[in-house]
Amino acid sequence: MATKQDTKHRLKLVLAEAALETVPREIWGHPAVYKHARRRGKPSASILLDRSIHHQAMKRLPNAEKRGRPDIVHIALLEALGSPLNREGLLEVYVHTLNDYVIFIDPSTRLPRNYNRFVGLIEQLFDEGQVPPEGKPLLWIRPMTLERLLQEIGATHVILLAEDGEHRRLRDIAGEALQHAPATAVVVGAFPHGDFNEETRRLATRVYSIYRGEPLETWTVVSHLLAVAADMLNII
Amino acid sequence: MATKQDTKHRLKLVLAEAALETVPREIWGHPAVYKHARRRGKPSASILLDRSIHHQAMKRLPNAEKRGRPDIVHIALLEALGSPLNREGLLEVYVHTLNDYVIFIDPSTRLPRNYNRFVGLIEQLFDEGQVPPEGKPLLWIRPMTLERLLQEIGATHVILLAEDGEHRRLRDIAGEALQHAPATAVVVGAFPHGDFNEETRRLATRVYSIYRGEPLETWTVVSHLLAVAADMLNII
Repeated sequence: MATKQDTKHRLKLVLAEAALETVPREIWGHPAVYKHARRRGKPSASILLDRSIHHQAMKRLPNAEKRGRPDIVHIALLEALGSPLNREGLLEVYVHTLNDYVIFIDPSTRLPRNYNRFVGLIEQLFDEGQVPPEGKPLLWIRPMTLERLLQEIGATHVILLAEDGEHRRLRDIAGEALQHAPATAVVVGAFPHGDFNEETRRLATRVYSIYRGEPLETWTVVSHLLAVAADMLNII
Repeated sequence: MATKQDTKHRLKLVLAEAALETVPREIWGHPAVYKHARRRGKPSASILLDRSIHHQAMKRLPNAEKRGRPDIVHIALLEALGSPLNREGLLEVYVHTLNDYVIFIDPSTRLPRNYNRFVGLIEQLFDEGQVPPEGKPLLWIRPMTLERLLQEIGATHVILLAEDGEHRRLRDIAGEALQHAPATAVVVGAFPHGDFNEETRRLATRVYSIYRGEPLETWTVVSHLLAVAADMLNII
């Protein structure tokens, strides 16, 4: 049984190119954005871009198909932070966004279960730089590229999960990650459609697909990876 | 490799006593409920009870700590329907609610990822009895007890997952479920706090705990069970 002191097997999980950002300047004045911001009592610049609300306005944005999906990070983080692996102190999770911000998360953080409250929390995080704004933060955000993040956390072995990667059993991928831990990061895309950027792919030591080339939701990849790893470590 | 025609290993998953209901009559007139309903342009009777909005009003309700959490069903269903096990045609999932309704779900259903849209969909389901309202339904709802549901789906071996059950490896539980499939149902609670009703416990053939007596979120139990089962069937 792994213990809370055991850092040897601690897995580093990175949600990469996450579709999480505040409304970009180009569409601050769009009627749908403006109206929604006013109803929320916030300036357009302080609300999260959300396809379910800003769909029309997003048509003007470059790269729109990869943007505006806070729900992906929300559900993936709920799976990560609530997993037995994290409860045992064997997980570090980071969120890298499409615009090169990185969110650091205290593993004991209990995120809001309600989506709208999660959105409010992340808006506060973008506004204040940390949550809660005073004292020891549970979440904090810094401008940072994925490359820099991987350096900072000492991840020299980078496993990228992508549907066009080499097909491999999830059990073997988890085994490889645990074997090279704590120098391994598993990178999972947290955007809805489209492909990883070239810069992200360049950082990968290995690119694997876990389900015969078919795309899976981010939270499914996260939960299944953490479940199989927990099984292999006899935690569940 | 399992195939789509293989029903021998098809797992039946039941989300039980789910905290999913429309606002009950006792609090239709509460100012917070009334105001929220009016803003949504619906009568109070047609909106879902949601603790994140109706917290104050819910203080009047019996059994309040188990009620008003549509997010639990939402995330658990996203995990279930998007799982490789379901994609392979090896999963049936049912939602039994605290008020003895059962939601049946076509396994090919693609649920809204956005929470607010999911809420709208379930409100339509309660209003119309099925979604979409015309033609072949993806979701349909019937008044039905858990006992009746288990009879209807031919589940004679009922595994209840509860934190006070006998501790067992998830791998062994999944193995037992698959071995007795398709006559096995795995029942997972879909309420936030409190315990299963006595009537639910009476229906269980076995009661197991997967994580040393500590509570886990519903979606965590679902995703980890389906991941371990998929691993055992060589799907991932």
